[in-house]
Amino acid sequence: MKHRRPVRGVLSRIRLFATDVDGVLTDAGMYYTESGDEFKKFNTRDGMGIKLLQRAGLITALITQEETKLVARRGEKLTIPEVHQRVHDKLRTLRDIAARHGLTLGEVAYMGDDVNDLEALKAAGFSATPADGIPSVQRAVDYVCRRQGGEGCVREVVDMILAAQARSTEDVWASRKGDG
Amino acid sequence: MKHRRPVRGVLSRIRLFATDVDGVLTDAGMYYTESGDEFKKFNTRDGMGIKLLQRAGLITALITQEETKLVARRGEKLTIPEVHQRVHDKLRTLRDIAARHGLTLGEVAYMGDDVNDLEALKAAGFSATPADGIPSVQRAVDYVCRRQGGEGCVREVVDMILAAQARSTEDVWASRKGDG
Amino acid sequence: MKHRRPVRGVLSRIRLFATDVDGVLTDAGMYYTESGDEFKKFNTRDGMGIKLLQRAGLITALITQEETKLVARRGEKLTIPEVHQRVHDKLRTLRDIAARHGLTLGEVAYMGDDVNDLEALKAAGFSATPADGIPSVQRAVDYVCRRQGGEGCVREVVDMILAAQARSTEDVWASRKGDG
Amino acid sequence: MKHRRPVRGVLSRIRLFATDVDGVLTDAGMYYTESGDEFKKFNTRDGMGIKLLQRAGLITALITQEETKLVARRGEKLTIPEVHQRVHDKLRTLRDIAARHGLTLGEVAYMGDDVNDLEALKAAGFSATPADGIPSVQRAVDYVCRRQGGEGCVREVVDMILAAQARSTEDVWASRKGDG
Repeated sequence: MKHRRPVRGVLSRIRLFATDVDGVLTDAGMYYTESGDEFKKFNTRDGMGIKLLQRAGLITALITQEETKLVARRGEKLTIPEVHQRVHDKLRTLRDIAARHGLTLGEVAYMGDDVNDLEALKAAGFSATPADGIPSVQRAVDYVCRRQGGEGCVREVVDMILAAQARSTEDVWASRKGDG
Repeated sequence: MKHRRPVRGVLSRIRLFATDVDGVLTDAGMYYTESGDEFKKFNTRDGMGIKLLQRAGLITALITQEETKLVARRGEKLTIPEVHQRVHDKLRTLRDIAARHGLTLGEVAYMGDDVNDLEALKAAGFSATPADGIPSVQRAVDYVCRRQGGEGCVREVVDMILAAQARSTEDVWASRKGDG
Repeated sequence: MKHRRPVRGVLSRIRLFATDVDGVLTDAGMYYTESGDEFKKFNTRDGMGIKLLQRAGLITALITQEETKLVARRGEKLTIPEVHQRVHDKLRTLRDIAARHGLTLGEVAYMGDDVNDLEALKAAGFSATPADGIPSVQRAVDYVCRRQGGEGCVREVVDMILAAQARSTEDVWASRKGDG
Repeated sequence: MKHRRPVRGVLSRIRLFATDVDGVLTDAGMYYTESGDEFKKFNTRDGMGIKLLQRAGLITALITQEETKLVARRGEKLTIPEVHQRVHDKLRTLRDIAARHGLTLGEVAYMGDDVNDLEALKAAGFSATPADGIPSVQRAVDYVCRRQGGEGCVREVVDMILAAQARSTEDVWASRKGDG
């Protein structure tokens, strides 16, 4: 496992933060109910991390192979502008989003936990996986989080990006005060 | 991380116990169902802790930025007199509650886990965060719990307050027997 | 924490196994949904433990202060003959059950995790608490489990009782084969 | 606990992967709601593991003593061809499946966590249990996983099988690209 701190230079250039959903923003749980419902467990501190990135001016994105109404709802709650579901080629979607915003892949951070994330992880300027990402993903990424999926791994990476951009979490939070 | 035992003197003066909800009274999980429902995971031992504080004569309060019916319901179940939702300035709310009860902030204990709790944590007579509170909060508080949010961190602080007030958990519990 | 192996003699005499529900048979979670529902997380291996005790001829019982339909349902699923809810004096209920079955408290094992279990724990022939039972309960019991509530702590005690009664888990399970 | 790596030879011959459900594919949680619903927590990385096995040409199977619609749904989602519920003699069912596919039990891998899995585990060519499988099962199997039930233990075994068959997870995943 790589826990080495990524070069500050790379993180300071990130303008777009994109992440897989199941196993990164969630605890990898696929909860099925007998009555036919399904649910997922997200994390409130990851949610705050996403909001902090937006306040710091970064673009935020979700890219998932599944398609559910609950992910759309979580995206709306966190006002994430780029929510892409039923994606089979994540790298292509990541390229499209970056291009639309006039960014290179070097300005993109991507988080994923399984084989279908590998291409996007290898292409992104900065890549990270939860502590419980699968071994072949752990070997491919720039950073393996201390926290697991759904337990704050996204927030961990967010705080690294903000710090590299010389912005403390508190400062970004306080900046909201002039929101109007 | 600070695990230093807070001065007994401070704890012995606490008359009001206030806490954030998500990530302190819960496991930080934001559970979303496909059918449109949401839920949170509270802890039965924290619930007992809240009841013990009330029996010992302390005022109990919840202060959260979110607004849900389920938090209102949990507050009613635990007969918490001060439940404040949709709060954007937690310190102001904490001041208001204290003032209404004729207390100073020095007589208030507050628990929180994220940047939006920092001002209230710094102003309270005693401040604590769960073991999984974010790093900048861990640096700001008087006490970092051994337990995580939703896993009994509130009860841990409650037992410290009761002990400092020379009341064992068993004694407070037994005192109920004369309830009538 | 006491992890000392209880005297085999005590365990070999146990004829009734009674336990608290929240925090012992569950993970201490009080899950509240926005739509007004509630739920609890039980453990399938604890369930199997309860069934094994019944096959070995022991009486099984649940004693809880709360009152929910879901605990009644779990009790029915496991065909537990003694399900007692809304109990404020657990020791009295435990005594009543034992008396009705012609047993002394020395023939009773009881598991609990919080102050409202203390009297019953102290009176029972054998007492145990989950790894996450509160400190004052841990100090009072005969055995502190390696496993937490809802994570198999009941099964841990069941296997100790069966072993002390010279019955391996496999043998008790196999005995079902003659069920008819 | 045995963590010894199983002989590569055995794993290279596996053509059928069968597993118990509760406590292996799930976190052993039996979640009951007050309104009468039930649910289970599966794992997305285990789901990907099942799909990878199918792509590598193996037969996949679920064998459980319980009977729920949610297990049927999870099986359909993962297009598992052999879903067997309400099974009281798991070894017999395992034999039947193997026979129908013209396989010997030596070509079968089976995962289980409790006494009712023991016979099938002992008969299968390769047997494994989650890190939290009960002690008597841990003693009987070829491999004790590092991961617990519902936390990726199935994926752990899947990756071992694929590696023994000289197929990296990435290669099997990439093979899908020619799916049409």
